[in-house]
Amino acid sequence: MQAPFTTLTGFRAILQALPQPDAEAIAAAEARNAQLTKPAGALGRLEELAIWYAGWRGNGRPRLERSQVVIFAGNHGVAARGVSAFPPEVTTQMVGNFKAGGAAINQLSKTFGAVMSVVPLELDRPTEDFTEAPAMTEEELVAALAAGWEAVDGDTDLFITGEMGIGNTTSAAAVACGLFGGSAADWTGRGSGVDDGGLSLKTRVVEAGLSLHAEALSDPLEVLRRLGGREVAAMTGAIARARVSRIPVILDGFICCASAAVLQALAPDALDHAVAGHASREGAHRALLQKLGKEPLLDLGLRLGEASGAVLALSVLKAAIDCHSGMATFEEAGVSGG
Amino acid sequence: MQAPFTTLTGFRAILQALPQPDAEAIAAAEARNAQLTKPAGALGRLEELAIWYAGWRGNGRPRLERSQVVIFAGNHGVAARGVSAFPPEVTTQMVGNFKAGGAAINQLSKTFGAVMSVVPLELDRPTEDFTEAPAMTEEELVAALAAGWEAVDGDTDLFITGEMGIGNTTSAAAVACGLFGGSAADWTGRGSGVDDGGLSLKTRVVEAGLSLHAEALSDPLEVLRRLGGREVAAMTGAIARARVSRIPVILDGFICCASAAVLQALAPDALDHAVAGHASREGAHRALLQKLGKEPLLDLGLRLGEASGAVLALSVLKAAIDCHSGMATFEEAGVSGG
Repeated sequence: MQAPFTTLTGFRAILQALPQPDAEAIAAAEARNAQLTKPAGALGRLEELAIWYAGWRGNGRPRLERSQVVIFAGNHGVAARGVSAFPPEVTTQMVGNFKAGGAAINQLSKTFGAVMSVVPLELDRPTEDFTEAPAMTEEELVAALAAGWEAVDGDTDLFITGEMGIGNTTSAAAVACGLFGGSAADWTGRGSGVDDGGLSLKTRVVEAGLSLHAEALSDPLEVLRRLGGREVAAMTGAIARARVSRIPVILDGFICCASAAVLQALAPDALDHAVAGHASREGAHRALLQKLGKEPLLDLGLRLGEASGAVLALSVLKAAIDCHSGMATFEEAGVSGG
Repeated sequence: MQAPFTTLTGFRAILQALPQPDAEAIAAAEARNAQLTKPAGALGRLEELAIWYAGWRGNGRPRLERSQVVIFAGNHGVAARGVSAFPPEVTTQMVGNFKAGGAAINQLSKTFGAVMSVVPLELDRPTEDFTEAPAMTEEELVAALAAGWEAVDGDTDLFITGEMGIGNTTSAAAVACGLFGGSAADWTGRGSGVDDGGLSLKTRVVEAGLSLHAEALSDPLEVLRRLGGREVAAMTGAIARARVSRIPVILDGFICCASAAVLQALAPDALDHAVAGHASREGAHRALLQKLGKEPLLDLGLRLGEASGAVLALSVLKAAIDCHSGMATFEEAGVSGG
């Protein structure tokens, strides 16, 4: 579906009229949950997840059959500053690996039955180095948001997005710091694995970006334009599109959550259709999840990006829905209630 | 396979000659892991899991294709003391529900492709009330251990066991307290959901059992015989059998871990082939996991038993193995290393 906006003003307007979950479906799911053959509450967070999902799907006994995973890839001018443990050409090389089926996310998508695709975004034209200029023009930001929007399959039951882009934890740290304040050090982590010297350099780069753009950070979309990147903005657009189509979302790690945070800054309830898949080992991810008010489903020390933690958490959501919609009630099974 | 023991002495002897993981397969898996297209360590605990699994399967690039889940069910004399929120007939009713496919574990096994079966253990003959006599005779304990042993399919790649038995968190609390010491209150929780009064009664029942059998608790198998139950002992036998066949195990919640703890008390390395699937909300499960030296994979507030948390964690193990054995190396993918 073509994006219903061609300007930032158009995108902003969409966030001011977001659909809400279906209260009747939530009530039906709650009533069903209370009758299933288990002690009340014994499936813990699985019960909350199933009810949340039922509300967004408008069905008190939903199924999860079509999950979509989209990886956006972008290149960052700021990568030239040496902020990553890997050289910038790895973005393009990894896109090839995604297409050939060799990356972690290919295996995870297969394991949990999700349809995965990769969307490279002008890899031969990196964003500007945000320590010298805004990363993107307004047109470039709109194009990236629209690319994200258009990548979502409206017939999907569950949407997950992830990223690949050498330098993008630096960009995400700058975006998070621009949105939430605090110091650059609060938000900067080791990314793909920089050493202490690399972390210190990376922190100074984030500081320089925030300092250059300090006057323009009160608008979340300006934060995204000046400090973000194409794949960061595409995830923002995709998560917004999922909301408009009432497709539930599982958020991935630090970069994905920075993209999502832009939406929350524009409309406080914009992420009600999203759960946090996992707590990443990337330094500031937990702090970011707290800002989003999300409790992660998993905590397994991942720090890969590529939507890997979110797809792993898809297993938990599938389990929740399969229990909710597949279990017998006390009456059906002839089991005495508690 | 018929159990290779007919006495407790025979069972003890097996635990003194346990097989170890394959050091060559571990080395091969570590070498492969270092070459996969991801930053070093970026898959966190998934990397450790894959290497651990490779060692037990004797294959540096293993697959996980046949998972087996066995639920043992037993009835407890101590249930007559009113320690559960559910009446004792629910054990038999839930066995019917397992067979009909209506329980949570049926859905979870289907979601993650595990073959599940239920083994009812003389449900019309509850164990003795352990506050009045030993729960089982020596012959009964041997029979329960053997039932567990014989339920394991030697051709399976991964084994999970769980339980159903009204009153069995009371039994498991008594076993844990008998093995590890401390007070009855340290180990007694709300099980299927007793209120404060129920918890207090349950704690007194556990205390009474420990007091009656105090002189006999230095032998872990005596702890199991006097305070356990048929399904608790069957899980002990099954986990031992998996070890002998080098089949990795995912441990479930409090009761399963109490069963496993008996093995660790008999041979300190007896659970090296097992990981902890999850931290249950049952009060003392975390304390028990600490005694076992196991860090749970998931923490989702489950307290259902039935192997539900372990089967949910199977998704994490499958993901780990699929990534390890399916991903491309840097060389294969033409990606520049970090």
